[in-house]
Amino acid sequence: MKTGLDFLLAAKRCEIDGLQRLAFTATLVDVTARLVHSLQRERGLTNMVLASQGTRFNEARGAQLGASRQVEAEWRAQFERLDASAAQAGHGARLFSRIAYVLQGLDGLEPLRERLCGGEWNTARATEAYVRLIAALLAVVFEAADSATDPEVSRRLVAQFNFMQGKEFAGQERALGAALFARGQADAAEQQRLLHLIESQDRCLEVFGAFAPPETRAMLTAPHAGGTLAELERLRRVLCTAAHGAALRPELSQTWFDTCSARIDGMKGVEDRLTADLRDLCSEKIAHAQAELATFGALAAHPAPDPLAFYLAPADPHPAPVTTQGFGLPLERSVLELVNDQARRLQAMGDELEAVRASLNERRLIERAKGLLMAHRHLSEADAHKALRQMAMNQNRRLVDVAEAVLSMAAVLPPR
Amino acid sequence: MKTGLDFLLAAKRCEIDGLQRLAFTATLVDVTARLVHSLQRERGLTNMVLASQGTRFNEARGAQLGASRQVEAEWRAQFERLDASAAQAGHGARLFSRIAYVLQGLDGLEPLRERLCGGEWNTARATEAYVRLIAALLAVVFEAADSATDPEVSRRLVAQFNFMQGKEFAGQERALGAALFARGQADAAEQQRLLHLIESQDRCLEVFGAFAPPETRAMLTAPHAGGTLAELERLRRVLCTAAHGAALRPELSQTWFDTCSARIDGMKGVEDRLTADLRDLCSEKIAHAQAELATFGALAAHPAPDPLAFYLAPADPHPAPVTTQGFGLPLERSVLELVNDQARRLQAMGDELEAVRASLNERRLIERAKGLLMAHRHLSEADAHKALRQMAMNQNRRLVDVAEAVLSMAAVLPPR
Repeated sequence: MKTGLDFLLAAKRCEIDGLQRLAFTATLVDVTARLVHSLQRERGLTNMVLASQGTRFNEARGAQLGASRQVEAEWRAQFERLDASAAQAGHGARLFSRIAYVLQGLDGLEPLRERLCGGEWNTARATEAYVRLIAALLAVVFEAADSATDPEVSRRLVAQFNFMQGKEFAGQERALGAALFARGQADAAEQQRLLHLIESQDRCLEVFGAFAPPETRAMLTAPHAGGTLAELERLRRVLCTAAHGAALRPELSQTWFDTCSARIDGMKGVEDRLTADLRDLCSEKIAHAQAELATFGALAAHPAPDPLAFYLAPADPHPAPVTTQGFGLPLERSVLELVNDQARRLQAMGDELEAVRASLNERRLIERAKGLLMAHRHLSEADAHKALRQMAMNQNRRLVDVAEAVLSMAAVLPPR
Repeated sequence: MKTGLDFLLAAKRCEIDGLQRLAFTATLVDVTARLVHSLQRERGLTNMVLASQGTRFNEARGAQLGASRQVEAEWRAQFERLDASAAQAGHGARLFSRIAYVLQGLDGLEPLRERLCGGEWNTARATEAYVRLIAALLAVVFEAADSATDPEVSRRLVAQFNFMQGKEFAGQERALGAALFARGQADAAEQQRLLHLIESQDRCLEVFGAFAPPETRAMLTAPHAGGTLAELERLRRVLCTAAHGAALRPELSQTWFDTCSARIDGMKGVEDRLTADLRDLCSEKIAHAQAELATFGALAAHPAPDPLAFYLAPADPHPAPVTTQGFGLPLERSVLELVNDQARRLQAMGDELEAVRASLNERRLIERAKGLLMAHRHLSEADAHKALRQMAMNQNRRLVDVAEAVLSMAAVLPPR
């Protein structure tokens, strides 16, 4: 017959399982980040080829295609290892569904590349295709962040997701700017779009800053990044303030691309650090939990505590502040005390996890509200986002509150 | 190499796993409900024995102890089957931790019964001991409700949890009233406590009503229940309006116990129906999901759709209203369409689940706020709840809003 101690151990084993799953998730996030990075470069170079009517950048693009193919193969191999039985029911289904969607995109990638060579598609359309595939990959990272069962790991994944999203906005900015410089002009709508991409980046990096460990945060503002940033801001000014119809110097497209790329590659360094730290954190936590499990296991032979202890102990519904790391001297404690400690710790972890996830819920609400606006007002994603921001500014409310208000209106909107 | 279809199937398998886990959970909830029911009777009879100074009800109590021991053995056997590897990481750890806590209580149950025979403990203390064990059992049901991955099942579990909680308040009312009638008098504080238990029941049954299927809801208000309820209300009036020091007729303790028991046994009928329906619902959903899985599987040999479909399809971020039951004609659909359907369905399910869980979050917040008040103002649970209700009434706000306000004050409260 199983005892309380057995279930105490089972709870600990569940925690370890969850952490091991997270460690593997960290690997998946890492390879996903690398694939996104490669596709971002491919998008930028493809745009430059298209904008120059196929006269320039063909070689660089060719090399990049090779690199992308290699990372894609690696991505497929890593996700091949993902075992259905190892996933959590609710999150597992969503994660697998997201992966299935990505694979639809990857399967169409070679045909897409051929189509793009044909010259029928303009840069906007090419960008849109890559944006869609990258968004699908980011959704995989989002699910991973959402499924984390450890608050500390969840914080890192939220930081990572927001960082990747911010970097993707930076990548879209690079692609759009490259196309505009190469074409030699920019209209007001394109300039507006560029400004929107810059704002969106800043917003994502803010959330990243709130959740990332300080060392990683510091990398973003490292001294050597200053020069690149100053050059980027100068080029942004040139792009965004050019009067309607005024000529942009096409030779700046290379400068623009290199400057953006230097910044984005720097961001990739931060990303690599994030994933490496995440893996270390998971290993550390697994080792710690396994040591605890072993300590608990050694208790098995200890005499039972006062059989009435359960009924005599004062009810303590308010958990004392508990660190998830320290553990005291379990050998001197009764199983009941250990059970109470564990319950308190799990409760504290659950509360913390809920708080971290709230930031993801905000994104969910905003995304849903955007979707609603896109469908009902026939807006592009950028315009839907702009509309939400405008409402928020006019009403002096947070974006998420406006999103909630929009969603609560859904019932009274006319059908599409 | 795994294809998009493979991951589509894996997502479906995850859903089926989750449902199978829920079906087993339904079994665990069922046996937990039966154990709680038996312990509630045991508590009532023990109180009557204690209140009569051991002169009456000994035989009835003895019979009930036998019944409780039998259900306890069944409970242990069912939970023995619970496999750590089958549980979800986050929820699993919490569930196992709750079970470990219950086992501490069950292991102390025989010593408790002996202690209660000794006559050193009064009815209030005896009640408190059973209340604690039953609360531990209800916490197991709460975790089960919280871990459900299917919104429809989650609704049922939320209904069931609230019903069990309401029934427990009814049981506490029975125990308290039985003790008061047997003793022959009631003071103002005890009358207040009784009123609080009646209110708490009503509140729980309200939530139950909001989430239960109509057939089950109707059982509560069935015509034959009317007579019992009228008699109960008459006895409640006698108890709650007796002037301080006025004598209650001790022979009414049996009438009170029988009337309360008739009502509570009627509630047990509703509970049995709830668990039976839940099992049926799970089986139905599993069968449906397996049929879908088979249909998807048959798609494997179908030709690939337009390889560019992923990039050409209009982005459709706003999910069309999707029923979780109907499915159209999958054989005529491409894998991409199926993936999109699945993503929409999972999204809709996730949204619905979130809404259902909000009701559980309310309980969590209220419980946490209560715990805070108990710790910092040295209140009993009932008084902490009363204090919250009073604040809510004074400020004309919902209980959950007051709870949130209390919790946000936690940081500025003095340490215990």
